[in-house]
Formats: sequence, structure tokens, C-alpha cells
Amino acid sequence: MYDPTKPYKHRILKLIESTWRTPYVSVRRGIYPVFTKKFSDSEIQHTDGIGTKGGYHWRARTFRSAVIDALAMNLNDLALVGATPYVLQNHIVLPEDDHEAILKIVSTLSAECRKYKIAMTGGETSIHSDTEGMDISITVSGFVKKVRTNRCRPGDVLIGLRSNGLHSNGITLVRKVLGNMYLKDCTRPTAMYLDTVLRLLKKHDINGLMHITGGAFSKLKDILDGADARITFPARFKPQPIFRKIFEAGVPSAEMYRTLNCGIGFVLSAPQKDAVHILKVVPGALRIGEVKKGTGVVYIRSAFDGAEIVI
Amino acid sequence: MYDPTKPYKHRILKLIESTWRTPYVSVRRGIYPVFTKKFSDSEIQHTDGIGTKGGYHWRARTFRSAVIDALAMNLNDLALVGATPYVLQNHIVLPEDDHEAILKIVSTLSAECRKYKIAMTGGETSIHSDTEGMDISITVSGFVKKVRTNRCRPGDVLIGLRSNGLHSNGITLVRKVLGNMYLKDCTRPTAMYLDTVLRLLKKHDINGLMHITGGAFSKLKDILDGADARITFPARFKPQPIFRKIFEAGVPSAEMYRTLNCGIGFVLSAPQKDAVHILKVVPGALRIGEVKKGTGVVYIRSAFDGAEIVI
Repeated sequence: MYDPTKPYKHRILKLIESTWRTPYVSVRRGIYPVFTKKFSDSEIQHTDGIGTKGGYHWRARTFRSAVIDALAMNLNDLALVGATPYVLQNHIVLPEDDHEAILKIVSTLSAECRKYKIAMTGGETSIHSDTEGMDISITVSGFVKKVRTNRCRPGDVLIGLRSNGLHSNGITLVRKVLGNMYLKDCTRPTAMYLDTVLRLLKKHDINGLMHITGGAFSKLKDILDGADARITFPARFKPQPIFRKIFEAGVPSAEMYRTLNCGIGFVLSAPQKDAVHILKVVPGALRIGEVKKGTGVVYIRSAFDGAEIVI
Repeated sequence: MYDPTKPYKHRILKLIESTWRTPYVSVRRGIYPVFTKKFSDSEIQHTDGIGTKGGYHWRARTFRSAVIDALAMNLNDLALVGATPYVLQNHIVLPEDDHEAILKIVSTLSAECRKYKIAMTGGETSIHSDTEGMDISITVSGFVKKVRTNRCRPGDVLIGLRSNGLHSNGITLVRKVLGNMYLKDCTRPTAMYLDTVLRLLKKHDINGLMHITGGAFSKLKDILDGADARITFPARFKPQPIFRKIFEAGVPSAEMYRTLNCGIGFVLSAPQKDAVHILKVVPGALRIGEVKKGTGVVYIRSAFDGAEIVI
């Protein structure tokens, strides 16, 4: 838990407590709070942090965006199993004991938790004098009312949801290729897809769902179930300028689509009938391809140079 | 979750799956596993990492000890509410993509999880090129059959359980005072108190429990409930030599007991009758003082220079 000798401990505890009024848990206070669930569904836990991107957020002091990144990385993965998040723990690593930064991080996270009805059940702040960056890692638990398999089916339409730029992966590649510039691109927060996905799952058959993060489009292989994905982006779709800059700096299309989201942060695989409706109602949703009988391969027509990539 | 492009992903997933046979959860496999609990008690979540100590473990390649540290920091805190751990998530941060280190960490953690019947429900490995250290952070959930208040009562005997040296706190102070030497002292793992505490709670009244970590003996104030703690260590008790070295390097007694465990890693506050039995059956248990009516102050007679410290 938070170090009791720190002057900001009580403000942090107040912020954490402000998240405990959710419909999903009741709390018994004490030296550590004990939570009792108000439901008995299956559940999933998930952990993710902001990795190398933390260094950029630290230098730019974009703490709000850093929190959104950490939260979105977790909640978007929960969306893959249609889980509703209800409790989380955080772990904040900073190179120095910067009270303003810690309070900004915890207060942003508390506000987001209240919005999503997630009880923040605790966390840890750790000062690492041997790091130059910052990390915010979150572990979230979600409950699952109906356990579904996540598998594309031949005949499905592939729908891409637009990303907000780089999100939280491939930052090391960007730094290698473009140097330490592009602070704005490297601090823009990850888009949140959970709400959209949970809403769609209530009304539609969606066979496959994938969050395009580390490993990028190669992640689709985990849900292809022996079918092939054939991806051709519509002509009107342009990846954000930062992706073109990276491509033009010499990164081949195959590596682009294996490492970066290239403008698409989430992929849905749905039967034709459902896809038509989803494409109509979700802003920024694009038809990017289809699923065919095959051998579990991802084919992509690159939006950068038209090359056909096989992943 | 683990990056699918990494060659060690499947070995890691196998290790994680090896922890899923516990009496506490059942698992439905999928792109993310979904867990259903076999009980419906209250629960607690807890997150902690190894902080600055990670840098020492990385340089000494003492990965096994690093895992024990991360696990003990969490499980010992769970002991404060008498919780039984049943699922955990890990977050491993390394300065480089060292496969051997990652596998050693996950295999040690899997083995410990099997021992404690904890299902490892996932985790994340993150390579931070801007850190020189290493961090292993764990989020663990425990269930609580009987929610107890954690409060010392006047008349209680204070019992100290011996530490295994520095444990995972105050490493920054050690480095400031003694420099970067003492690698052995800075990589010795944290003692595990959970088993002992859970066993004692089944048979004994124990009013107060405290894990002596960040903040050291000042943490006792959180459970004093307006009473005073009066601590005098028995003459035969000697803190480990590393503590004497730090003291002799010029750290005053008051700072020693506010920052370091000084040989005592866990404190129990129990009625006289229970204390007598606990002191008999627990190896390394020492009577270190008593609880008196007062104003919530911790008085310590320093084992280093006999000074009376007020915290």
C-alpha cells in the first residue's frame, strides 16, 4: 500500500475511497479494506502497463494521458471476453518522489474509475532512482456474465475501429527509427474501445475480437482458428501521418503491420448481417476485409505501398 | 498478456497453466482464460513490487530471490487480514529482452504458486530501455473467511518475528550510506510470514498484526487505536550485522526504526495467554514489548545505542 510516511498518503486514500461506491462491491474498511462482491459470475484478471511510452509521458508531464493509456490497455483487453471491469489495483513507478505527479495520476485514475464504476482497491507507488522513465501498471478484474469463445468464422466481415495514433506499443521502434522527437505522437493516449464493444455484444453476434497492441496484426492469428484473414483497407482510409513517417524512414510494410497498429486499434469479426449494422452505427468503423477458409494466415494489402504481406 | 511474437511465449503459458489446478478456481480456457471461483467469501486485492532492490537482483542475477521478494511483500500484507491468496497477476519490467531471466522468473513464480495453491491468471513482461534496474510487481487476490479488525489492545504483548535481513525496503538508504557494495545483503529474499500467521489465527486471539516494510515501525501507529506501543528488545536479540553497519555509518536510531526492519519483519499483538503459547511454538518469535493505554505513540528502546525513540 502507500507509504505511511508520505505527506500525500491521506489525500491518496481519500481519492481511492471515492471509487468504492459502485454497484458491484461492498466494502468493509480496516487497515486494508475487504471487498464483498454483489454478484457471482466468472471473472478475468488482466495486467498491463505503459512500458517505454512512460518515459515520454514523464518528460512531457502528460500524466492524464499516461493514466488513460494504462487503463485503456487493460480495459480494451477485457473487451475481448466481454468482461465488465469492477476492481483494480495500480502500481506507479517514478524516477523521483514527485508529489504533484503522484497526486495527478491517482486523481485522474480515481475519476476514470468512478466513471466506469470500478472500485480502486489499492495500489503501490515506488520510487526507482535507477530509471529515467515512468511506469503505470494496472491490474484489473472483470466479471463475465456469459463466457464466449473468441473465434473468427469463414464468411465473417472484418471491421476495424480507428486508433488514436501509436497507442502504447512500438514506441521503442519509433525511437530507433525517428529518434527522440515526435513527443506529441508519443504521448497521445490510447483509444478506449470497451464501451463500444460491450454495447455491440449485447445486440450482435460478434465471433472474433482483437485489440491491436504488441505484435499488432499478428495477434489476429490467435483467433483465426485455422481460417485466413484477408485485409484490404478502403482507399479513403489513411493511417495517421506518424505511421507514414515511420514507413518512409525505411521500416518495411511487413514490420509495420507486425509492430504497429497502423491506424486500426481494434478488430471485430462478425457475420455479414451484423457487420452491416455495426458499420452503420459505430463512428470510425471500417470494413477492412474478410475471413476465408484457409490455414490460419493473415494476408494484408499494405496501406503504405500496396505490397501484399503474409503474417 | 505476453507478446505473441516472443519465442518463449508458449513456454511461459505452459508454466502459467501449471498453476491452474487449485481448489479455489475452475478455468474456462480461451484467448484469455476466465476463472470461476469455488467459494463466495469476501476478498482483498494487493499490489507490491520489489522497488530499488530490483536493480541489485538484476546485477547479481538472483532471479529466484527477486521472485520470493515480490511474492513475500504481497503475501505478508495479506496476512494482516488473515486472507488466503488464490489468484495473482505479475508485471515484470526488465532493461533488456533477456529470455533466460524471464523464464527463470516465471518458472520460479509458477513453482511458488503451485506450492501456495495460487492460480497465476496472467501477467505482462515489459522491456524498458530507459531503466537500469528490474521490477517484479505482483497483484494478488485473497479470500477472507472471517473479516477481523486489526487493532492492538492495552495489555497485549508485542511479539516480533525475525526478519531475514533488509527485506525489500530501505535499499535507497543503504545505497546512500554504504554505496553500491553489500550485494549479498541487498539480494537476500524477504522472509515469508503468511503460513505462520494463518496457522496462528486458527488457534489464537491475535488483536494486531503488522508487516514491517516501508515506514518500518511507524506502521504500528496504524493499528494502535490510541494505545501506546512500548518496545524493548531482549538483550540476546542482535539485529543482523548489516543494520549495525548502517547505524555505525551515521544513521541515527530514530531513522533506523522509521526506515528499516532492524531484524524484526513482522509484529503480532496478542493477549498475554495467547502470547505465551505463540512464543513457545513459533521459531524466532521474540517478546519485544507491550501495549499500554496512551495516545497512539510508539516508544522504542534502540537495540543499537539504548536511546529511547519516540515515533
